[in-house]
Amino acid sequence: MSQQRHGSTPGKAGAVPAFPDLPEATIARLPEYLRALHNLHEGGADTVSSEGLAAAAGVNSAKLRKDLSHLGSYGTRGVGYDVALLIDQIEYILGLDQRRAVCLVGVGNLGHALAGYAGFASRGFRIVALFDADPARVGEQINGLTVRHIDELSRVAVEEAIAIAVIATPAGAAQAVADDLVAAGVTSILNFAPCVLTVPANVDVRKVDLAIELQILSFHEHRKASLTALPGGRVAAGDQEAVGS
Amino acid sequence: MSQQRHGSTPGKAGAVPAFPDLPEATIARLPEYLRALHNLHEGGADTVSSEGLAAAAGVNSAKLRKDLSHLGSYGTRGVGYDVALLIDQIEYILGLDQRRAVCLVGVGNLGHALAGYAGFASRGFRIVALFDADPARVGEQINGLTVRHIDELSRVAVEEAIAIAVIATPAGAAQAVADDLVAAGVTSILNFAPCVLTVPANVDVRKVDLAIELQILSFHEHRKASLTALPGGRVAAGDQEAVGS
Repeated sequence: MSQQRHGSTPGKAGAVPAFPDLPEATIARLPEYLRALHNLHEGGADTVSSEGLAAAAGVNSAKLRKDLSHLGSYGTRGVGYDVALLIDQIEYILGLDQRRAVCLVGVGNLGHALAGYAGFASRGFRIVALFDADPARVGEQINGLTVRHIDELSRVAVEEAIAIAVIATPAGAAQAVADDLVAAGVTSILNFAPCVLTVPANVDVRKVDLAIELQILSFHEHRKASLTALPGGRVAAGDQEAVGS
Repeated sequence: MSQQRHGSTPGKAGAVPAFPDLPEATIARLPEYLRALHNLHEGGADTVSSEGLAAAAGVNSAKLRKDLSHLGSYGTRGVGYDVALLIDQIEYILGLDQRRAVCLVGVGNLGHALAGYAGFASRGFRIVALFDADPARVGEQINGLTVRHIDELSRVAVEEAIAIAVIATPAGAAQAVADDLVAAGVTSILNFAPCVLTVPANVDVRKVDLAIELQILSFHEHRKASLTALPGGRVAAGDQEAVGS
């Protein structure tokens, strides 16, 4: 699959294959550009200006041009970027030219929803196995998959050559699950459990803590309230006392 | 409202109360410190070293000390930080000394899970209203709340003085929902819909795109595969060709 990519960015003859060393923030924005490019493509656009793509992705255009220059994509003056080509380039860099197998551990409230999340399938991933420690959940069918007992995790992860796992267990269970996943060869973990995972250096962890996202917004609410009195009594009385140091 | 703030960061006499101007990355880490501090507190710790707290929060200790210095918290040499005091300080800054009302729009698969997510309630938030556009969902009970029709959103958001909203609708519906929320006085939005929202400058938006998190991990898988062939046939054939620089 996916041979002959990147005619646009030829490597040096005979050199060890180089993989671009991208800033973490650039890596995080590439999927945003990709999402916007797919929307443009579906809308029939063949080319897009850096300003147009930046607006569609919600970033500023200078940042976008710099990000894409890391991929060797500079666009064409007066024309912009070739939408289809840029999709190919970003999907290649993100490793999305194959559909990656993902397993999910913990099918409680949130895990159940993640197992049925259509956005994973449409954007490069297939969930191939579900696990839970609760015997009452084992055997349950979710989106065509049968929930397996966590004791099968190691065997299945090896058999299915799973490299990416999603942890949606309670915080107290997450580290043991991560240890099992790593032992079974998983090298990327998306962690929804509200805790810090300790993993070897070759394992990448991304975390999504839903309450933390709200706490960051709460900070901004607090900051805005401190700058200006909002109408309608929107600040509760308990918010008024001082904090010492 | 909000007088007498920041005994720890005194403003000029007669000046408007000062609110610390924190780097965005520091703001995002404060909730991580808070989570770790609560765990330490529950474990009976009265004080914690910067190294201990940094390890518990999964950051490096120099970064932690710098972050906390923005709050006027430097700890005590040889003793460390007072756990209970630092909890109070961070909760104050994050505006968590009140339980903030949140509404949630879109109770499909993911929204349903979010509505039942216990982590919101335990970490400073109460979901006070649920909305959906699907008449079949209106009237449904989730976690003690009745799903209302989206047409009621504006009225309820004003009545309940809701400042923070979670959008978990399909992408195509999210902007219209955001517009309604902003019109009703919402000034912070947590957006799970995979799209960019356009909002006024006084409105803060955080986004969580679950597929993007996996795509970032996919990049790291691709990068790792390009650096080294992993044992056990774990690298798919198509993942091995070179990308030029």
